[in-house]
Amino acid sequence: MVKPVAYVKNTRKEIEDDNWSSVISEIHLAEEIPEETLSGITAFSHLEILYVFHKINPDNILLRAEHPRENPAFPKVGIFAQRKKNRPNLIGSTIVELVNTERRRLTVKNLDAIDGTPVIDIKPVMKEFLPKGEVKQPQWSIELMKNYWTS
Amino acid sequence: MVKPVAYVKNTRKEIEDDNWSSVISEIHLAEEIPEETLSGITAFSHLEILYVFHKINPDNILLRAEHPRENPAFPKVGIFAQRKKNRPNLIGSTIVELVNTERRRLTVKNLDAIDGTPVIDIKPVMKEFLPKGEVKQPQWSIELMKNYWTS
Repeated sequence: MVKPVAYVKNTRKEIEDDNWSSVISEIHLAEEIPEETLSGITAFSHLEILYVFHKINPDNILLRAEHPRENPAFPKVGIFAQRKKNRPNLIGSTIVELVNTERRRLTVKNLDAIDGTPVIDIKPVMKEFLPKGEVKQPQWSIELMKNYWTS
Repeated sequence: MVKPVAYVKNTRKEIEDDNWSSVISEIHLAEEIPEETLSGITAFSHLEILYVFHKINPDNILLRAEHPRENPAFPKVGIFAQRKKNRPNLIGSTIVELVNTERRRLTVKNLDAIDGTPVIDIKPVMKEFLPKGEVKQPQWSIELMKNYWTS
C-alpha cells in the first residue's frame, strides 16, 4: 500500500503542460514522517521526486498506443514510450534542484507537479545513477519538450 | 493501489549490494498489460524502471538516520538522503540501457533488481528530464557506489 510521505505546495493549482521552470515548489513532510528522514540531504544538489498524478481518473489510464498530447504530428506510441500522466499506477518521477531545506520542508525547482500532489518518495541524485552512455531519443520527444521547462 | 505492470527475470536470485553491471535482465510484461504499451520504445536508448523492493519486510522500513550500509565510516543520514531499499513505500528507481525489444519482453542492462522483482512503471529517458546544472553529492556516496556497477 503506497502512502504519501510528503505533499507539494506551489502556486500551480491546475494541470498544465508547459512552463514548469517558473514554478518554485515546497515539499512538506507528511505528519507521521519524522524530520530525521531528511538528515544530510543538503549535501545533494538534486533530488528525484516520485509522486502521484492524483487528479487523473484511473478509468482514463491509457493502454493503447496514442499520439502524445493528442497531436497527430507525433507518431502513435505506447504509454511506456512516453511520460504522459494517464499511465498504469499514475506515478510521476522528476529530478529537481534542491534550493533550500528548512526543518520539515524542502524548497525545489523544476518539479512538474501541481499544488497538493502526494509525494511517495524522495531520493538523492548520484552521478552513478545517471545514464551510462549516450542518451538517444526520437525527434517527436524533443519537439514535445520544447516549452516544458521555459519560464 | 499499485499493481505490477511487468516482472524482472535475471540470474540474480538474492539481494546483493554490488557488481550490478554483470547482470543482464529481461522485463516481461504482466499478462493483463497489452504489448501495444511498448510501441515506439526502441527509439529510446535508456529507460527509467520503477520497481518494488519486494523482499524487504515493511516492518524494517527506516525512519531514523543511520550509517549507509551500516558502515560507521559513513555519516548517519536520513532515508531520503540515501537510496537504500528499506524506505517508505519500498520503491526503487533506476535508469537502464535498452538492449533489445521482442514483443512483450525488454532486455536491459544496469538494472539493480533481482529475479522476480515487480515493475510498476517504465518511462523513456529524455535528456530534458536529466539534471539541469552541475550535480553535487557528498564524498560518502561516491565511496559507497565504487563497486556498484562493476562486473
